[in-house]
Amino acid sequence: MKTNAGRFFEDYQVGQMIRHAVPRTLSGGERALYHALYPARGALYSSDEFARACGLPASPIDDLIVFHTVFGKTVPDISLNAVANLGYAEGRFLAPVWPGDTLASVSEVIGLKENSNGQSGVVWVRTTGVNQRGEPVLSYVRWVMVRKRDAAAPAPVAVVPALAASVAPADLVVPSGLRFDGYDFGLAGERWRLGDYAPGEVIGHVDGVTIEEAEHMLATRLWQNTAKVHFDATNRPDGRRLIYGGHVISLARALSFNGLANAQMIVAINAGAHANPCFAGMTVRAWSEVLDTAETATPGVGAIRLRLVATTETGTDLRGEDGKYRPGVLLDLDYWALMPL
Amino acid sequence: MKTNAGRFFEDYQVGQMIRHAVPRTLSGGERALYHALYPARGALYSSDEFARACGLPASPIDDLIVFHTVFGKTVPDISLNAVANLGYAEGRFLAPVWPGDTLASVSEVIGLKENSNGQSGVVWVRTTGVNQRGEPVLSYVRWVMVRKRDAAAPAPVAVVPALAASVAPADLVVPSGLRFDGYDFGLAGERWRLGDYAPGEVIGHVDGVTIEEAEHMLATRLWQNTAKVHFDATNRPDGRRLIYGGHVISLARALSFNGLANAQMIVAINAGAHANPCFAGMTVRAWSEVLDTAETATPGVGAIRLRLVATTETGTDLRGEDGKYRPGVLLDLDYWALMPL
Amino acid sequence: MKTNAGRFFEDYQVGQMIRHAVPRTLSGGERALYHALYPARGALYSSDEFARACGLPASPIDDLIVFHTVFGKTVPDISLNAVANLGYAEGRFLAPVWPGDTLASVSEVIGLKENSNGQSGVVWVRTTGVNQRGEPVLSYVRWVMVRKRDAAAPAPVAVVPALAASVAPADLVVPSGLRFDGYDFGLAGERWRLGDYAPGEVIGHVDGVTIEEAEHMLATRLWQNTAKVHFDATNRPDGRRLIYGGHVISLARALSFNGLANAQMIVAINAGAHANPCFAGMTVRAWSEVLDTAETATPGVGAIRLRLVATTETGTDLRGEDGKYRPGVLLDLDYWALMPL
Repeated sequence: MKTNAGRFFEDYQVGQMIRHAVPRTLSGGERALYHALYPARGALYSSDEFARACGLPASPIDDLIVFHTVFGKTVPDISLNAVANLGYAEGRFLAPVWPGDTLASVSEVIGLKENSNGQSGVVWVRTTGVNQRGEPVLSYVRWVMVRKRDAAAPAPVAVVPALAASVAPADLVVPSGLRFDGYDFGLAGERWRLGDYAPGEVIGHVDGVTIEEAEHMLATRLWQNTAKVHFDATNRPDGRRLIYGGHVISLARALSFNGLANAQMIVAINAGAHANPCFAGMTVRAWSEVLDTAETATPGVGAIRLRLVATTETGTDLRGEDGKYRPGVLLDLDYWALMPL
Repeated sequence: MKTNAGRFFEDYQVGQMIRHAVPRTLSGGERALYHALYPARGALYSSDEFARACGLPASPIDDLIVFHTVFGKTVPDISLNAVANLGYAEGRFLAPVWPGDTLASVSEVIGLKENSNGQSGVVWVRTTGVNQRGEPVLSYVRWVMVRKRDAAAPAPVAVVPALAASVAPADLVVPSGLRFDGYDFGLAGERWRLGDYAPGEVIGHVDGVTIEEAEHMLATRLWQNTAKVHFDATNRPDGRRLIYGGHVISLARALSFNGLANAQMIVAINAGAHANPCFAGMTVRAWSEVLDTAETATPGVGAIRLRLVATTETGTDLRGEDGKYRPGVLLDLDYWALMPL
Repeated sequence: MKTNAGRFFEDYQVGQMIRHAVPRTLSGGERALYHALYPARGALYSSDEFARACGLPASPIDDLIVFHTVFGKTVPDISLNAVANLGYAEGRFLAPVWPGDTLASVSEVIGLKENSNGQSGVVWVRTTGVNQRGEPVLSYVRWVMVRKRDAAAPAPVAVVPALAASVAPADLVVPSGLRFDGYDFGLAGERWRLGDYAPGEVIGHVDGVTIEEAEHMLATRLWQNTAKVHFDATNRPDGRRLIYGGHVISLARALSFNGLANAQMIVAINAGAHANPCFAGMTVRAWSEVLDTAETATPGVGAIRLRLVATTETGTDLRGEDGKYRPGVLLDLDYWALMPL
């Protein structure tokens, strides 16, 4: 068999390093597509001139393009036989990516725990995206539930990694040269700076977008994510294609411009849950809750910690009376973004 | 409330200058997407070599990409609460835009007139698109009907601007360096030059294109146009998404290649009406009527004034017996394009 | 009539040279779209770094982007009135195409044969794609069945060109500088080299993709292919849009990565048949059969001859008991690709 059937639970060992295939050069083409697929309007990722006024040499490649590209490479090795994508932690953006840069990904298996049913287990990996100079640009942990090839195979010693509940503000990496002292709030779209936000504040982002099959497939392919559930309508009994969770992340983040236009760059992903599956035809809305604010080592550059929720409902409720995510909630993402102080 | 609810009629004053947010750098990526979204084949916008043979340093960014980009920036400030987009006038393309250029938009309110029902009013704005050197690249007037926040608010003094019925040929700006003396009609696709067209001539452009939801949304997002009616299927009782009028303009203009392959660059928009709404599933056809021809200040470069009609019908009738647009007519656009003399 | 109604059978003469309109500059934008439209993962076309490690100055434009671009230009002159696209032969890729290159196409009529029904005839053309320096980048023969304008027109003398059953290995052009001695099989995605494949071997490529209207139209427009059957749902009584055969070629080729990741560059198209029409909603799968392997004049660079079949079925049967293509078979393509020895 020359085709890749994907790894099963017993194919992973703690400490194993997996070098993922197919490096990818990113250009203005990927950026244009990203801006056609999502209502992205963050000025730093839209305008070279705005980025230069913020001390950068040009507009970097969008943070989430980097995330999806690095993530997509891991799919054939990590999640082809995954039953569920369980979570993210300790995600940090370590350096900007520029048009013309080439990204590759490598993952280390940092945890394994077989499920009590003996049919599957949880695999934790720490994935690092690197550019063509070998410099890390992104690092994050994710864990997935993976089927066993053979239920009779013995369970490995359980190793559950200790993961930080969130990235500490001191560990956020501000891109070299970034400065907000000449920041043009008018061009950015809103006048709110970090001091205008307070923990507990909830912002409904107003707009909804109805999901199309063609759009989520274009996006998912662009990141060379090959998971068949996203593309093959014959794969599920109900004939529906499951939408890549990253499509929902990007859509919700783009919608959050309305109210968070100055949350310019994602610098950390603290946690994330794909609470319910997303399918074409759903109309997705987003709301954010301010979880924290912090200074960074760079004068004038603050950080805002946000809960970003994508939902098919119109309210801003997260959980039902039973403590579980409400049925309309698709995404619950906890991240840090840079914002003018 | 940190989110933008948009301006209402009483938020505008004549003379007010509105600087729109989120400048945008355009690249070959936006061009590639434009050529995937519309059957565009104009040689000057398709080939760097053809453009160089016409005296330009490279192929400029398509005229309508510039229009949509400049227009899109105005939506959050001008038409978020618009009931209808009523018209365009005095549109002039003032300088070519090149890959790598960054566009921003500014609008001046030049007219206001409350409707007799007291519920809404008409706002006229003159919008200017500028590049990163502050040079104007496009200027046009549009007027929209905008809801009042409070019907009881007093009506402003009515100011209705005097607008030219069309841009005078002497006011058309021919891009610096453009020359058609070595023009290759074979590569351009047709042998007809300006002298082959006569006012009154009607050209049916043969082909039809059936509209898809994913395509009009990709296009509309690409221009950072945020009007929710285009994206949210829950926004109207009938569950249909209203298609951005500019999508119809670009589609019809691209279809007009067949018969007008040498109408290379739009240099003015004299008038325009979105006669009926467009929805996914419609099959859109186009026909043109030659309204006028003129010379320009540049030897060899002529101008053709065209009525471009997009319609779901197969004939070339514009109005019914009642003098109103036929129900299938979506667009009636009056523009000038440059063509070899 | 200024519009192009296309040529009919009696408009062709053997020896006629047809210079096709609208040259096209290709950039990173077209590449990004290609990678969004198809699950393409070939490392040489994904990463500038990988291409440099293989001796090339950068990642070339994907082979099939070149094919579709050159092909698209011929449609208004060759196949606007075609009843069927009958076959391909003697296709050779002659030089890599780089971002920024401009392609144009020219065709020579090399054969004509009227059908016995007197209503139509077969036209053979040899099409050459050339870059901005006039260098040929691709040459292939295709033949199409074209309607006659007037059934009473006399039949031309039949000229049926003698075509090679396949391109001889000695005629394959290996791009200048290409070398596989430092080839990184890990980054490429699979460990199989030419010696691991044997004629007769059949590889099922596992994944299926369900076709969307928006996607095939975006692709077909990107190549400036104007055949109305692809875009106009009112064109057929059943309201379906016929999908450009090249969309199926690209989809199947991209799916074949899984099992043929090291079949890096297509260098010849020996033969091809669009066995059955493809429509939106179909789920397309692919399988390949190894037909031959060969060395090339470049040390370390081998060639693999493959039959690539796109099908809506899950098996790898090509023909039914009647010897005809099975109803699910959409494409039967015979090509040569370069692979590390």
